[in-house]
Amino acid sequence: MPENNMDKPKIVTCTAPVNIAVIKYWGKRNEELILPINSSLSVTLHQDQLKTTTTVATSRSFQEDRIWLNGKEEDITHPRLQSCLREIRRLARKRRNDGDPSLDSTGLSHKVHICSVNNFPTAAGLASSAAGFACLVYTLARVFGVEGELSGIARQGSGSACRSMYGGFVQWIMGEKEDGKDSLAQQVEPQTHWPELRILVVVASAERKPVGSTSGMQTSVRTSCLLKHRAQSVVPERMVEMIDAVRRKDFPAFAELTMKDSNQFHATCLDTYPPIFYLSRVSHQVISLVHRYNKHYGETRVAYTFDAGPNAVIFTLEQHVPEFVQAVQHFFPPDTNGEDFIKGLPVSHAALSEELKRGIGLEPMAKGINYIISTKAGPGPCVVEDPTQHLLLSDGLPKKTM
Amino acid sequence: MPENNMDKPKIVTCTAPVNIAVIKYWGKRNEELILPINSSLSVTLHQDQLKTTTTVATSRSFQEDRIWLNGKEEDITHPRLQSCLREIRRLARKRRNDGDPSLDSTGLSHKVHICSVNNFPTAAGLASSAAGFACLVYTLARVFGVEGELSGIARQGSGSACRSMYGGFVQWIMGEKEDGKDSLAQQVEPQTHWPELRILVVVASAERKPVGSTSGMQTSVRTSCLLKHRAQSVVPERMVEMIDAVRRKDFPAFAELTMKDSNQFHATCLDTYPPIFYLSRVSHQVISLVHRYNKHYGETRVAYTFDAGPNAVIFTLEQHVPEFVQAVQHFFPPDTNGEDFIKGLPVSHAALSEELKRGIGLEPMAKGINYIISTKAGPGPCVVEDPTQHLLLSDGLPKKTM
Repeated sequence: MPENNMDKPKIVTCTAPVNIAVIKYWGKRNEELILPINSSLSVTLHQDQLKTTTTVATSRSFQEDRIWLNGKEEDITHPRLQSCLREIRRLARKRRNDGDPSLDSTGLSHKVHICSVNNFPTAAGLASSAAGFACLVYTLARVFGVEGELSGIARQGSGSACRSMYGGFVQWIMGEKEDGKDSLAQQVEPQTHWPELRILVVVASAERKPVGSTSGMQTSVRTSCLLKHRAQSVVPERMVEMIDAVRRKDFPAFAELTMKDSNQFHATCLDTYPPIFYLSRVSHQVISLVHRYNKHYGETRVAYTFDAGPNAVIFTLEQHVPEFVQAVQHFFPPDTNGEDFIKGLPVSHAALSEELKRGIGLEPMAKGINYIISTKAGPGPCVVEDPTQHLLLSDGLPKKTM
Repeated sequence: MPENNMDKPKIVTCTAPVNIAVIKYWGKRNEELILPINSSLSVTLHQDQLKTTTTVATSRSFQEDRIWLNGKEEDITHPRLQSCLREIRRLARKRRNDGDPSLDSTGLSHKVHICSVNNFPTAAGLASSAAGFACLVYTLARVFGVEGELSGIARQGSGSACRSMYGGFVQWIMGEKEDGKDSLAQQVEPQTHWPELRILVVVASAERKPVGSTSGMQTSVRTSCLLKHRAQSVVPERMVEMIDAVRRKDFPAFAELTMKDSNQFHATCLDTYPPIFYLSRVSHQVISLVHRYNKHYGETRVAYTFDAGPNAVIFTLEQHVPEFVQAVQHFFPPDTNGEDFIKGLPVSHAALSEELKRGIGLEPMAKGINYIISTKAGPGPCVVEDPTQHLLLSDGLPKKTM
């Protein structure tokens, strides 16, 4: 192999999805290894709407590990980044020592350049760290020729990142071991399992910057006795019920459990001292809207869930999307003329009956919601084969266009 | 005794206080007898600021039991009113049968006229039913010559009314018996015990009519697993700690437990399905203000508690009242010029340092708070000796002035 080829960087680009928990993760039993106090379950969102793209380049000519996030160089010494880099390199070394002949071992000592972008604004309030760390770990693994179970490494970047390592419906089994080796994500069903399921990310106008989830969970674990009870006595049963509801595609069961678990998570935040509030006035109105909508029809057609912020994620079935979106627009009259209010999967127009409006009977809240992203369940991380999509040039620096 | 004297009604007027729970009552194990799922503890507010006045008249000439509340005749057949009337008459009969010679037994078969008024607006969102039923039971007992333990009867009118039967610091012991005979209120310390303690009722502008507490508790008991845990495993310990903090007049301990218990009560409301929200945006801002105020001084000087509505009740020590009231006025600029913003016990003016304003650092919320009632702990129900204060005339009908 000619010397100049050795200097040419090896470049790999992958994408990874966002996931939204329907049984919530809140609280660690081990901060360093990121081991949770309870199992959780999520739906992986489709990357056509929401994804992180990461390019990793490695070359003997690189002087140091470097990282660019959304166009800005960031500190590579961040402990969680270091955990992921260290663990992937350890696995690669192990494979080489175990004597896999297909392994190109030369790259193991090389430094990496990492460049990552999200196709959605941070303002969307989606946990970008889950998609980000999932994508980083997946891409690094490709670069270093590591295969097999990777969710345990992604977990060490950001807890919920382990669930973004799979598509469809994913559980994060909390595990029991002290070293965390059994705290891993596992696919419950693939994204093809429930094609009618639709997901609406409802982006609320933020009133204030919420408490970060890392410090929020720490305070909750330390001060909330309800959180402890939830983790030990409520979630184990709910995991069984949720997996069963997903497997049977039982929307009412899935929806009710999703709403109850979101509410219980926020209840434990309120039981934290000092209390943490993630739900805003807009969130409360979305919750009321969903319950009144369901009550009007006498069946559970729509469910909400909220993470550590005011945005709602709505689950419903394809057939109910147009009307429910119309209801959201009616009770949250948008700032603009409604163009750009709905992003993502097309939503056909539906009329809103006077009866339904009366049945819901809420006071419209102007400008409460900025926009809706319409999406569905999607696949796990993917390799991008097209080299024009790389975020790093062959000199190992980000493309100027970012 | 001449016949015409027999026709003249016997008239008694009493007053009773409002109480505010610092360990909350939420949930019944028996709806009819009003037996709670946990013990609770409250502070009785001073009647100089907040009270119910009730006149009961009885005469052989009255055709039927009648009741007027705040100037309007109401339905006397209400089951909880009937419970109180029945229980008082039963006790009176028992005393006569036990042969107390001092008892005028003739009145026992007479009908009663009841007239009751509050000296505070219903809009203040204070649980007027507690003061109302306490006053009713206390006055009826005087009329029928019943003495001794009455909180068990008041409890059957409205659960928290049993705590308004005593002044100062009062616990409602949940009891264990099926017939509720041991579910009674008991004074922990009299109102003279902690003279420095001050109470501010902060009346928030209501955004919406909240869910009533009777139906709210029912839904919580049926659906919230966190409420069950709270009642069984959290409150018993907290009762011990709270009684100890009150006895030792340990303000930080009292204050922190008060805030935690208020938050946990609202957490169980959020864990209810569908969830119940009593805290408004204004409540959230009051909570933030209190925590930031305490943090600024590095000690717990102020505590909040919220019942089934958006109004805050603030506990603090006398010395901190002027500054904290000023802080409330600053961060909730009143509608008016500030006259009438503070009712009740006089509050002297205090300057607010720029340092404190910066330390709190909240965005002022105009018109969020309507007014503050400044008060302190006070005595239990009292007899009004002055006959000009009777709310019923000698014909048994309400005075026209009401």
